[in-house]
Amino acid sequence: MPDVEIGAGKSSRRGYSLDDLAIVPSRRTRDPKDVDLSFAIDGFSFALPLVSAASDAVVSPSSAVEIGRLGGLAVLNLEGLWTRYEDPGPVYDEIATLGDAPATRRLQELYAVPIREELITERIRLIAAAGVTTCGSLSPQSTTRFAKAVVDAELDILVIKGSVVSAEHVSRQSEPLNLKRFIREYEIPVIVGGCTSYSAALHLMRTGAVGVLAGVGTGSADTTSAVLGLGAPHATAIADAAGARSRHLEETGVYVHVIADGGMASGGDIAKAIACGADAVMLGAPLAAAEEVPGGRRYWEMAAAHPELPRGALVDVASRGTLAEVISGPARVSDGSLNLFGALRAAMAMCGCASIMEMHKTEVIVTK
Amino acid sequence: MPDVEIGAGKSSRRGYSLDDLAIVPSRRTRDPKDVDLSFAIDGFSFALPLVSAASDAVVSPSSAVEIGRLGGLAVLNLEGLWTRYEDPGPVYDEIATLGDAPATRRLQELYAVPIREELITERIRLIAAAGVTTCGSLSPQSTTRFAKAVVDAELDILVIKGSVVSAEHVSRQSEPLNLKRFIREYEIPVIVGGCTSYSAALHLMRTGAVGVLAGVGTGSADTTSAVLGLGAPHATAIADAAGARSRHLEETGVYVHVIADGGMASGGDIAKAIACGADAVMLGAPLAAAEEVPGGRRYWEMAAAHPELPRGALVDVASRGTLAEVISGPARVSDGSLNLFGALRAAMAMCGCASIMEMHKTEVIVTK
Amino acid sequence: MPDVEIGAGKSSRRGYSLDDLAIVPSRRTRDPKDVDLSFAIDGFSFALPLVSAASDAVVSPSSAVEIGRLGGLAVLNLEGLWTRYEDPGPVYDEIATLGDAPATRRLQELYAVPIREELITERIRLIAAAGVTTCGSLSPQSTTRFAKAVVDAELDILVIKGSVVSAEHVSRQSEPLNLKRFIREYEIPVIVGGCTSYSAALHLMRTGAVGVLAGVGTGSADTTSAVLGLGAPHATAIADAAGARSRHLEETGVYVHVIADGGMASGGDIAKAIACGADAVMLGAPLAAAEEVPGGRRYWEMAAAHPELPRGALVDVASRGTLAEVISGPARVSDGSLNLFGALRAAMAMCGCASIMEMHKTEVIVTK
Amino acid sequence: MPDVEIGAGKSSRRGYSLDDLAIVPSRRTRDPKDVDLSFAIDGFSFALPLVSAASDAVVSPSSAVEIGRLGGLAVLNLEGLWTRYEDPGPVYDEIATLGDAPATRRLQELYAVPIREELITERIRLIAAAGVTTCGSLSPQSTTRFAKAVVDAELDILVIKGSVVSAEHVSRQSEPLNLKRFIREYEIPVIVGGCTSYSAALHLMRTGAVGVLAGVGTGSADTTSAVLGLGAPHATAIADAAGARSRHLEETGVYVHVIADGGMASGGDIAKAIACGADAVMLGAPLAAAEEVPGGRRYWEMAAAHPELPRGALVDVASRGTLAEVISGPARVSDGSLNLFGALRAAMAMCGCASIMEMHKTEVIVTK
Repeated sequence: MPDVEIGAGKSSRRGYSLDDLAIVPSRRTRDPKDVDLSFAIDGFSFALPLVSAASDAVVSPSSAVEIGRLGGLAVLNLEGLWTRYEDPGPVYDEIATLGDAPATRRLQELYAVPIREELITERIRLIAAAGVTTCGSLSPQSTTRFAKAVVDAELDILVIKGSVVSAEHVSRQSEPLNLKRFIREYEIPVIVGGCTSYSAALHLMRTGAVGVLAGVGTGSADTTSAVLGLGAPHATAIADAAGARSRHLEETGVYVHVIADGGMASGGDIAKAIACGADAVMLGAPLAAAEEVPGGRRYWEMAAAHPELPRGALVDVASRGTLAEVISGPARVSDGSLNLFGALRAAMAMCGCASIMEMHKTEVIVTK
Repeated sequence: MPDVEIGAGKSSRRGYSLDDLAIVPSRRTRDPKDVDLSFAIDGFSFALPLVSAASDAVVSPSSAVEIGRLGGLAVLNLEGLWTRYEDPGPVYDEIATLGDAPATRRLQELYAVPIREELITERIRLIAAAGVTTCGSLSPQSTTRFAKAVVDAELDILVIKGSVVSAEHVSRQSEPLNLKRFIREYEIPVIVGGCTSYSAALHLMRTGAVGVLAGVGTGSADTTSAVLGLGAPHATAIADAAGARSRHLEETGVYVHVIADGGMASGGDIAKAIACGADAVMLGAPLAAAEEVPGGRRYWEMAAAHPELPRGALVDVASRGTLAEVISGPARVSDGSLNLFGALRAAMAMCGCASIMEMHKTEVIVTK
Repeated sequence: MPDVEIGAGKSSRRGYSLDDLAIVPSRRTRDPKDVDLSFAIDGFSFALPLVSAASDAVVSPSSAVEIGRLGGLAVLNLEGLWTRYEDPGPVYDEIATLGDAPATRRLQELYAVPIREELITERIRLIAAAGVTTCGSLSPQSTTRFAKAVVDAELDILVIKGSVVSAEHVSRQSEPLNLKRFIREYEIPVIVGGCTSYSAALHLMRTGAVGVLAGVGTGSADTTSAVLGLGAPHATAIADAAGARSRHLEETGVYVHVIADGGMASGGDIAKAIACGADAVMLGAPLAAAEEVPGGRRYWEMAAAHPELPRGALVDVASRGTLAEVISGPARVSDGSLNLFGALRAAMAMCGCASIMEMHKTEVIVTK
Repeated sequence: MPDVEIGAGKSSRRGYSLDDLAIVPSRRTRDPKDVDLSFAIDGFSFALPLVSAASDAVVSPSSAVEIGRLGGLAVLNLEGLWTRYEDPGPVYDEIATLGDAPATRRLQELYAVPIREELITERIRLIAAAGVTTCGSLSPQSTTRFAKAVVDAELDILVIKGSVVSAEHVSRQSEPLNLKRFIREYEIPVIVGGCTSYSAALHLMRTGAVGVLAGVGTGSADTTSAVLGLGAPHATAIADAAGARSRHLEETGVYVHVIADGGMASGGDIAKAIACGADAVMLGAPLAAAEEVPGGRRYWEMAAAHPELPRGALVDVASRGTLAEVISGPARVSDGSLNLFGALRAAMAMCGCASIMEMHKTEVIVTK
């Protein structure tokens, strides 16, 4: 890896964000109708390589069903408003009216209400009843506590998500979550992250996870980079995880999916994430622009409500159209915010790629 | 080519836009009067290395004649307003009044009106009657369908243009355009593009095209980069195509012209494109600033009206002066928007270059 | 060190600011409760690696005591308002009302009032009476003159600070301060700076100083870079000083502390400074946002009042909360301006680091 | 020289502007009183390394005298308002009131009035009568025509200045200026430029010029870079010229002065230009901020009035103080716009440099 010298006492390397890159089509093009966008993980198949962010602004039981029907996988935040409140409607209404200044403080209070296990069960079953794949997220700190409720509710896929999740969490205070043992004991397929380096991704893959979230502090409403200074640029995080995927595949024969997490605003960003090695993308703010989501023209993530050290903003989102229009078009605007996966299909066709795996090999160029 | 490592799973290289560069004059200067700007392609000669964009905002039959008289080559969009409407006047009037929000949706509707072959013939003959070289553009998808009409109308030069055009288009749905066979069968000289890499340009040259358009997503009203994530930075796209031109010349003895397409706003940008290896430049928005063009202080390109995935904006353009003043001066402003080719002449003189071919060898320097 | 060629007559190297970097967590994480943030220098221990700027806007005798109680070390400017005025209250009141234009001129006048030695003694004793470690700053030009007063007042730690301080000051006009001899003669531990290169830091360490301030022109209210053109980017300045620390430790067995000086606005910036090799950070503007400090929502540094060549602005600061909230939280905003050291603790935990020394080895990545 | 690949057909190198750099002080500092700023060229000595731009906004006969008394060299534009108008007062008054839009057009008209040789003589003698060194500028195109008038008026130093001046100007239209022969025939010392590469500077030095202006398109009111695309970044232009100076000195034993031309706004910029190798600096806009100059709070250069291709703006300038305050202080603001040479002295002292020649060896670092 090429070395950069920060100064006499410190070496480094250069990282790249998706904004630093463009995709370079080459000498062959393809009919968009021949492009296959499908994505499969641990026996579950999806028409699109789309995973939603585990954001209360995007995923309610009903929007989860709609995202599933459109070909994606929606992740319900199992420690969010839907498992703390019997009826989160009034909470959503209040958040929609919060101004900038008191937003963080009020979010902290609203998310201080205790989680009710029976609501976890109820929400999962409601989504399952509609016939789509169910998926929910827990933080590493709460995984052990709620695991049984989640498994009993027959959740299809579990996301274990924190700002940074490692395969080896060390504590002298309490028994931490041992991911490897957890995954071996419970039968549920686990997607885990965020992570942002080759070795972090590789060790997460070795725990037996079926998918790894690549990206730390990349989201548009995420202030981790200001608050903590953490996070490799996203294109590098994705490419590092893709490199770890190759190594892990050689060592074990198991292909662990890399899911690019956060910070993609347009079809172009999605295409670049896939060109860098992602198997699928986790989208938050772009979906918050859809009419059917519960956020009410606001987007926020779980970390925005951290009791001691909030690391997220409550951002305004423009309404763009239906979930179907955002995801599959047709677009009536030209800025890339609608028909996200039609755009991915077109970009792949212009690069001559018939599948996500072929798109991984497409040339990218650094533009700045 | 120097390697850049995006991460463990992906290598890349650095690309450069024209804005990243400056031209470095060296130890010799020349009298501007001794500089030869002429440009010849397949027997057609032009006083200036100027090709217009195939934009309805810039080219009507009458502005095509004026651009031809001033020494350039105007490209009429053969799938645009002039071949869909007997009298496009009212359509232009409406576009001039469109606001931001409904613009894309209305453009989609206006360009959904069917193309009439007899209008193709009529428009071409009208321009030919004025004694200037005639040139029109088709998309690869429509080339086969309208080829006969175009040839029958005795068009001088055909431009086959899409966001990305390759020499090898693959489809399992339908018989795609085979460029090589098309060019062999029809006698008309073809300019084709866009393309944005060495190998894409080389393979387009091998089809028998007389010119290649270098640049994808470079135009000021083009949103391809946001929507699809595609497109090498322009200076690199031009230099790559120039490298392919040298290779093709060695292999075949045929010199295929490289035409830098889009994104040049001033005489300085034109001079830099030529220093990077372009034989001529294709200009859109800068010509839209002229009084005689039909766009009515608006500029847009064909892709702005794509029915599923529009990739262009409708941008406001300030009126600058006559076509003659924009192209040949004299300038009464100092921002580089007028007397574009007087500026090219002056820049070449300050670099001691007597011809476009000499200007290709001028030193450029990366400024940021 | 990798070479950069500015031109035929000049070589250079690339420097990095903290904004150019992000911290990359790796394969291990840690419980924040197990992270040790303590900092010790020459027998004095502090709960936090926090040193205040020697700014009149931040440090009064009473805010010094509060900063001490919260675990940091406050540096009183011994040539500032508190040693020139018996009651600086009215001066602070006037500064709070100064507009942009007359600010510099009036500051020059307010700081032209002579320093009174008895006030030096009085202020130091007042802070000492509260039971916290006392620290004050002098410029190199005044150190000899006021050294006796400072030592007689039993100051715990002396900071000798100028825009640039070197171990070898040359003058044909007068006898300059010989740092090495001064430190040998007086028993007081000395922190000295700023400096911004490996060799400058190494030679300052060889004078016997217990700490070195790394950074020139880095502060948010500092205009040294515009006025004088001086100052390596901060991450490079810190890493260079850390490299000198290692060399000095090998040569002498003595560990001299590197204190990153200025320009850090958030917990993330602090974490990055420590990842680059700092043992502690000197903060000005972030503390000026606290309710208890004397600046009255304004921040300025000593150099803002230079009689011939002022090199600092009088900047407005938003009120954020109490000193306790700024330093240790909890935060009620998500922009990184509160709970600065809780954020450092969290960042270190996410990098699996149990101590400042371990954090020095954390990977950083260049983000732009 | 390290190679950058723009694309397959074009190589380049990276250039640096002064804004890309900072000066790195090292292990020694010096008393500012011991710093020698003097500058001598062909027997003429100056207290400061200051040459004024040949701008009508800055230099009138009376401001030329004041600049001379303050230790610098003022360059009167011998093809400007003072040699076209017996009394240029009303012209200055009109320019002071011109708005943005008509400015260029009106400047073109005002500078179309013929030059009167007797006014050349008169203006030079007026300045000489005050006892300061006289200096005036001609364009290469007019040098032969006015040379006799200038020599007869006993001008001390002649500046031959164009956007780009080369040692070898080629024309098939007319006999161009042969610089080498001109300098041999006339006895007057010549400063010539601009130039912006090693070879261009070297060949200009070989003509016998005593000084070379390094910089093309660098000035704050200069639009050459937009209009023509020309001009290496300034730090690189200066360092290249300094490299040529070394080569020329080795070959001939003659030290030709490098004068950094344009684009420096503060003392810091001046210090950086000198650290890159300049012997002196040519300042325009910073001096236009002084009360005594004729421009009336406006700054423009000769090229702003070019009849076909104007390459300069008419920019507003804030009034800062007297010429003495701008040049030698004291400063009552902290942004670097006053006491420019006091700042240079301070910067050199902080770098331990006693002379301009020592400052050439100071380390610089690339900051972005």
